[in-house]
Amino acid sequence: MLIRSLIDSIQEKQSPIVVGLDPRLGQIPDTIKSKYFKTYGKTFKAAAEAIVEFNMVIIDAVADIVPAVKPQVAFYEQYGIEGLEAYKRTCDYAQEKGLIVVGDIKRGDIGSTSDAYADGHLGETEVEGEKHNAFSVDMVTVNPYLGDDSLKSFADRIEAHDKGMFVLVKTSNPTSSQLQNLKVDGKTIYEIVAGMVDDWTEKTDQYKGYSPIGAVVGATYPEESVKLRKLMPKAYFLVPGYGAQGATGKDITGCFNEDGFGAIVNSSRGIIFAYQKEAYQGMSVGDAARKAVEDMKLDINKALEDAGKKYW
Amino acid sequence: MLIRSLIDSIQEKQSPIVVGLDPRLGQIPDTIKSKYFKTYGKTFKAAAEAIVEFNMVIIDAVADIVPAVKPQVAFYEQYGIEGLEAYKRTCDYAQEKGLIVVGDIKRGDIGSTSDAYADGHLGETEVEGEKHNAFSVDMVTVNPYLGDDSLKSFADRIEAHDKGMFVLVKTSNPTSSQLQNLKVDGKTIYEIVAGMVDDWTEKTDQYKGYSPIGAVVGATYPEESVKLRKLMPKAYFLVPGYGAQGATGKDITGCFNEDGFGAIVNSSRGIIFAYQKEAYQGMSVGDAARKAVEDMKLDINKALEDAGKKYW
Repeated sequence: MLIRSLIDSIQEKQSPIVVGLDPRLGQIPDTIKSKYFKTYGKTFKAAAEAIVEFNMVIIDAVADIVPAVKPQVAFYEQYGIEGLEAYKRTCDYAQEKGLIVVGDIKRGDIGSTSDAYADGHLGETEVEGEKHNAFSVDMVTVNPYLGDDSLKSFADRIEAHDKGMFVLVKTSNPTSSQLQNLKVDGKTIYEIVAGMVDDWTEKTDQYKGYSPIGAVVGATYPEESVKLRKLMPKAYFLVPGYGAQGATGKDITGCFNEDGFGAIVNSSRGIIFAYQKEAYQGMSVGDAARKAVEDMKLDINKALEDAGKKYW
Repeated sequence: MLIRSLIDSIQEKQSPIVVGLDPRLGQIPDTIKSKYFKTYGKTFKAAAEAIVEFNMVIIDAVADIVPAVKPQVAFYEQYGIEGLEAYKRTCDYAQEKGLIVVGDIKRGDIGSTSDAYADGHLGETEVEGEKHNAFSVDMVTVNPYLGDDSLKSFADRIEAHDKGMFVLVKTSNPTSSQLQNLKVDGKTIYEIVAGMVDDWTEKTDQYKGYSPIGAVVGATYPEESVKLRKLMPKAYFLVPGYGAQGATGKDITGCFNEDGFGAIVNSSRGIIFAYQKEAYQGMSVGDAARKAVEDMKLDINKALEDAGKKYW
């Protein structure tokens, strides 16, 4: 059961951390990328090969100390077909290494179209009676603007294929308040979406009280997260915004329940490009990433212990 | 200038119509697909080849009577890498035939990630100083749930590369009301998003008073569209929901301004699979699609004339 694997892995590794695989070609070291430019020129193919090799270095370095990785598909899609091949190879490699893969795709559409997205990213696609996997990851992020019939497509595949999703509730970016914080009869839009998510969590099987249907709740809005934790007790939170976007361990304790579970915190740049930071100077890409994860673990676990939310 | 091309083409062809290229493999005739199953087996490769050939038949049949086509990327993404190659080949072929291509991608994310999507779908992606196109279409659809910093990425590429976008305002699906119709101080969310779109239209160059930044307004909600028309006078509307989703010519006249411009109406299944309908029995895929477009033109232009919104 997916949500069980996630929770057990968090506990075993003492690490409620997801590593965001958002490769920025400009920050990948020449030692990795120059050989591909030599072979393929300054092409998408070269970019894709460099990205895959870089991601493999990161995955190898952190696979035993984090439960999950989260490739952001936009950073692959921008390199076209070759980039999406790199996305797929990255997802497959991470799964081989025993990691849960969260595809950060933020899709959502009218019902029949959401079905196609959900088949492509969580389920199977039929070709004349034969079923194949397109980008089969373990969990995805989903945009709620089109309402429940958009979410239902994903919920159906979650049930059928033992997968999971995180619905965007309160995102970490500066203008997230523009729509998400508007108030309807005293309730914000993000609270209303939280209510939708809570309804969905009730309909699924659970493990330790948690559903495979969760929510994206930005680390950059600590007060909101405390309210949201109460509104969606059974939802696991995917928490972006730690590190490069400014949040620290103390900011995210409100995303966790009293049992110390209920959230998984993402850091992308702060981990994968740690080798460029002063604190990790002289270390290899992999060693720096591993040390950055260890530092993040300490920060988060310390903050959780201080908040009386020890889970280990 | 893109918005000029769109408007001039609508006027010249007397056709405010966009053909949705949403291929459903099960509805593509055996005469097209069986040879690919023979060559490639029941694989994504076979599906992709069948889809491209089918789309080419449709594009050839309608290129001189519609200004634009709109491939829905989900119907390609579900077939993985091969499916996305079919998406790209379809877009490229339609552009070669002089059509404006609207990529129905409904992307939207935090700023730096939206930049990557916008580069990939509207702009260019740099590889070590060299710029390449990933899925370079003319216009895209964008989801507003993350607010203005998500939209800004697309607006920047629209200005730099002479492109366009349609922001989801009021979608055509049954549960669109769930969030979009909630009221904040007497104003619905879709009206508030309309206000955001209106602000963006003011910042762009215009042609005949229209901006390359437009809105998705579902044909299935005629009353809402009348209100929205007034709130975004400079926005072109992309209107889904005609035909298979139930709307007719009379339902969509409110999407148009008094000058008879301001909206382009999408039909997907009603056109591309017209050959399966009783009304077009015995006709080829292409002939049926062409006749369905002609019938849709008559219906819409008649409705516009009746509403005093003749543009030709």
